[in-house]
Amino acid sequence: MTKVAIIGYGNIGKAVEQAVLAAEDMTLAGVFHHTDSIIMEVLSPGSTRQSSVQQLLDADVCVLCTPTREVPAFAKQLAARGICTVDSFDIHGQILDYRAQLLPLTREQQSVSIIAAGWDPGSDSVVRALLLAMAPQGLTYTNFGPGRSMGHTVAAKSIKGVKNALSMTIPLGTGIHRRMVYVELEDGADFHTVEHNLLRDDYFAHDETHVIEVPSVEALNNVAHGVHLVRNGVSANMHNQNFEFNMTINNPALTGQILVACARAAVRMQQRGQCGCFTMIELAPIDLLPGTTEENIKALV
Amino acid sequence: MTKVAIIGYGNIGKAVEQAVLAAEDMTLAGVFHHTDSIIMEVLSPGSTRQSSVQQLLDADVCVLCTPTREVPAFAKQLAARGICTVDSFDIHGQILDYRAQLLPLTREQQSVSIIAAGWDPGSDSVVRALLLAMAPQGLTYTNFGPGRSMGHTVAAKSIKGVKNALSMTIPLGTGIHRRMVYVELEDGADFHTVEHNLLRDDYFAHDETHVIEVPSVEALNNVAHGVHLVRNGVSANMHNQNFEFNMTINNPALTGQILVACARAAVRMQQRGQCGCFTMIELAPIDLLPGTTEENIKALV
Repeated sequence: MTKVAIIGYGNIGKAVEQAVLAAEDMTLAGVFHHTDSIIMEVLSPGSTRQSSVQQLLDADVCVLCTPTREVPAFAKQLAARGICTVDSFDIHGQILDYRAQLLPLTREQQSVSIIAAGWDPGSDSVVRALLLAMAPQGLTYTNFGPGRSMGHTVAAKSIKGVKNALSMTIPLGTGIHRRMVYVELEDGADFHTVEHNLLRDDYFAHDETHVIEVPSVEALNNVAHGVHLVRNGVSANMHNQNFEFNMTINNPALTGQILVACARAAVRMQQRGQCGCFTMIELAPIDLLPGTTEENIKALV
Repeated sequence: MTKVAIIGYGNIGKAVEQAVLAAEDMTLAGVFHHTDSIIMEVLSPGSTRQSSVQQLLDADVCVLCTPTREVPAFAKQLAARGICTVDSFDIHGQILDYRAQLLPLTREQQSVSIIAAGWDPGSDSVVRALLLAMAPQGLTYTNFGPGRSMGHTVAAKSIKGVKNALSMTIPLGTGIHRRMVYVELEDGADFHTVEHNLLRDDYFAHDETHVIEVPSVEALNNVAHGVHLVRNGVSANMHNQNFEFNMTINNPALTGQILVACARAAVRMQQRGQCGCFTMIELAPIDLLPGTTEENIKALV
């Protein structure tokens, strides 16, 4: 049984907990709020007390479900203690740097850290890699949504006069997206001023954006999301090879499930001495699954 | 530069040649007809002559494009000489046995053999594995076609009175398929007798099958094929997660391209000492691609 600890208990942490409880080959070693000072304490070298802390240190792997910007600090502290980690760090432009920082730590401590796991970056990256191998020349478009964009929602909330906001990403094809921004205004705020400032914000200035005033953003709350990923390319000199990957999913549930599959892979890889820091395109898909190699080949190949 | 040899020069062998010529990190070490006795000779221990034979022995990896039933004998002889192999062995029920036979040879000789590579078994297997990891409970259906079924076409050709035949696989959803069988009759053959015997054949008796007489099967020749793979499942206790993978492709071109991607992976894995016999779900997708780890993470993750 793989012992899984969770740090962070928001939408993703709760989904990870559900996925661990549903997995027959896993047990929950403990859930830790990332704001608990106790966690920061155990991560300071030399600390030894608290049974809950011991649970964290005894875990085979720790899934990091904190806000993405806090992830690298936790991962580095855990890796320095030889604890395997899995996270859904999703700032695309910083993944290589983050990986380069974790790589020496994980190799030195003979642990495994799987980073940028989830659906994008994550399973979408695996599909993009596979399609590139299948048709090396050509174009891939990843179309997101309909679904909530966290980054754009935060940006909309930061506009003066906005009490609450929701920015939906609507796929228009060929990687082009429309932003539908639903805003709940603060008392006395002027909609047209809010709209004007929002449309000038760098998050929205480059895409088709519509701002809509609503009485309650909470009433629109929905964690559904989707992907429509397409590639048209060339295999062995033959043009017009067409590929398409679609999904409509509960976003935190899928992210949590993939993190748990990667937690399984991390422990397997550590057990066979394949230590280091990896993104999902560097993992063998079979390592994500419970069961033996033979069982999975029989069922899937 | 990875030196790739090809044994077998039918549709797949020709596609592999095109894919190798298009790959900037590969050179063609030689193409060998599998009926050439010279190949069987070099594979007998102790043989040393012929420059063409030397090309085969000097290759980093050999792609086996012979009829599928002949593949294991070639693979075992090459593996016994420490030559990496890649093949598209596609008899689903025999893959585990074949793998078990190659595993000790490849480990002993520190080579890599990648078996059952192509699109099904192959890239479809990878998608099925990934979707199972993403939603562990649920149902996956692989729907094939429209496209020619080799096995059913051979079965139709073997019916008395049939001069030439083409059996098309038509997807009806939930893994159920219709067989559209186009037959060109021999002089004097009776269509209704042929139809009767074909519908009783074990290849066709269990599916909806339509038999159609045509003046020329050659006029219908088309190597297009397709897949519609769907999964509806549960991630982290959340039901109704929907996934779909579709493709419409030139069949031998895609098979050849995937074999070449696997040839690249075989050499990479051998270089880092990860020897043995593997199916595609046991490979990291990044190993299928040219370029450095960092370049591929930057472009795909």
